[in-house]
Amino acid sequence: MTGPAVPDIVVGRLPLYLRALTDMLSEGREITSSQELGDLLGISSAQIRKDLSQFGEFGKQGTGYNIAYLADQLRMILKIERVWDVVLVGVGDLGRAVANYGGFLNRGFRIVAAFDNDPAKVGENVGPFTIQDTALLASQIRTLGVRIAMVAVPASAAQEVADRLTGAGIRAILCYAPTALVVSGDVYVQYIDPVVHLQRMTYHLA
Amino acid sequence: MTGPAVPDIVVGRLPLYLRALTDMLSEGREITSSQELGDLLGISSAQIRKDLSQFGEFGKQGTGYNIAYLADQLRMILKIERVWDVVLVGVGDLGRAVANYGGFLNRGFRIVAAFDNDPAKVGENVGPFTIQDTALLASQIRTLGVRIAMVAVPASAAQEVADRLTGAGIRAILCYAPTALVVSGDVYVQYIDPVVHLQRMTYHLA
Repeated sequence: MTGPAVPDIVVGRLPLYLRALTDMLSEGREITSSQELGDLLGISSAQIRKDLSQFGEFGKQGTGYNIAYLADQLRMILKIERVWDVVLVGVGDLGRAVANYGGFLNRGFRIVAAFDNDPAKVGENVGPFTIQDTALLASQIRTLGVRIAMVAVPASAAQEVADRLTGAGIRAILCYAPTALVVSGDVYVQYIDPVVHLQRMTYHLA
Repeated sequence: MTGPAVPDIVVGRLPLYLRALTDMLSEGREITSSQELGDLLGISSAQIRKDLSQFGEFGKQGTGYNIAYLADQLRMILKIERVWDVVLVGVGDLGRAVANYGGFLNRGFRIVAAFDNDPAKVGENVGPFTIQDTALLASQIRTLGVRIAMVAVPASAAQEVADRLTGAGIRAILCYAPTALVVSGDVYVQYIDPVVHLQRMTYHLA
């Protein structure tokens, strides 16, 4: 597909639409509207129609969206009609929770390896994985051909880990550490930052 | 402040602006522009100017934004010039990580109590807290006057916990469980969902 690039902020809303559609499907629903989606997500229906129109025609005026069809289309657009392998770096409390997180299933991702630099943890099992030494990180990423990593190490170690990951071919990093990573322009970084969500809610509290 | 309500999607971008401004401040920077902020965040400079203009005048044409001033104003708009008390429910691996998370400091929030329904955990210390029995949840929330909760229980228990929280006066919930909570219209819910962030990045991967 060519044409002008879609702004990342628009791309960032597609997973929210997909999550809402998947919830509706699990309730046995078949048809929805931009109005209903908007009410659920706190986004205007006009914005939703505009966002979707950047990728194609997904509904007819007045008849709404077929939920299953739109969800399938969004999966293709987001390239998660396939399953992506992901490595996890850092298996403290947080990494352990991430390894056992039930939300990845059927949503396009599976963790294939977990690493920690604590000799006491190496060889231990977490979920279905045996924790490997971080020294093996680069070689394992190259062997497995993984492009995506989740980083759950302390903030003080996150940049060094990110450097090693990107050096080994990782192109997308989900960072749980409260720190800003510096990466080259061809690497994508997203942050799990609970405070951003909390601040969005306090605005509304009297 | 009266006037038309600002869309929640706009409110949701303010914490991102604040985080970027705080990073700049910590680097000793004094002035920035909507262009620079936009490049950092993947949001158009026009969008940023439009968002900020809904709350007031924060910069002069051609001279950019004073970073410290704009950050202070955003803190006031988001009501985090004060510190909000937060309760944590669920102290498994994830809850333990949340209790020890270093990112809350100076950003408007402090955890004041942690709860779990596992008798083996009650009385144990996590970070600076002694884990309390979930049976005490409602009475403690009322005594402390807390309005915000973080929920890190298994998905199967999240709705019941949410019902108890809102019944006791909680008006904002940050949910780590991979499930959609049903709450009344005067309660705000945000989700920590790593998959949403991963899907936003796979879009860009070839």
